[in-house]
Amino acid sequence: MEIAIENKIRYHKLYDLYGSLLTEKQRSAFEYYYLDDYSLSEIASLLNVSRNAVYEQINIATAYLEEYESKLNLLIKTEKTVSILEKMKRLSKDSDALLNLIQELEKME
Amino acid sequence: MEIAIENKIRYHKLYDLYGSLLTEKQRSAFEYYYLDDYSLSEIASLLNVSRNAVYEQINIATAYLEEYESKLNLLIKTEKTVSILEKMKRLSKDSDALLNLIQELEKME
Repeated sequence: MEIAIENKIRYHKLYDLYGSLLTEKQRSAFEYYYLDDYSLSEIASLLNVSRNAVYEQINIATAYLEEYESKLNLLIKTEKTVSILEKMKRLSKDSDALLNLIQELEKME
Repeated sequence: MEIAIENKIRYHKLYDLYGSLLTEKQRSAFEYYYLDDYSLSEIASLLNVSRNAVYEQINIATAYLEEYESKLNLLIKTEKTVSILEKMKRLSKDSDALLNLIQELEKME
């Protein structure tokens, strides 16, 4: 599997948002591959399954992540929120109370 | 089924957030029951299935909604965000630019 770096970054972000909705199997195949950078063969031997089974779990996992995003749009919303919060910070330099609230919102994204 | 009004309100909110993740069947049973206030028997005859099948679909739907919330916490986050935004509005009465940004964030919740 050859994966463009932009896709990799996107999957990382989607996994942060929706990883909890995947099954244990999907999560471990995904994490070994996308977070720890193991090869399919290495993961197959770590999980004691075929290389093909690993490949399928990873594909199912990324398909689910994209499906959740298409239905809930949390990534789009989060990126929009972060950009609005940046603008707000620039506008409220003189108010500590406002900056504190903005920081509270930032922690939630 | 006797449902406390607080549960009803909670299910409405959860449905707004996660309804898109339910199946077509779960959605229609849920909507007839919780949004349109039909009885189980009325829904059974509308969908041409048994009263028991309707009861099960509604229970499965609400169980899924609660499961999604336990994993993604969007309701908790949304309510927290709304309350922070209220406080920010009070603090930024004199800045139109800030109020506009706050309104943009409000639209996203």
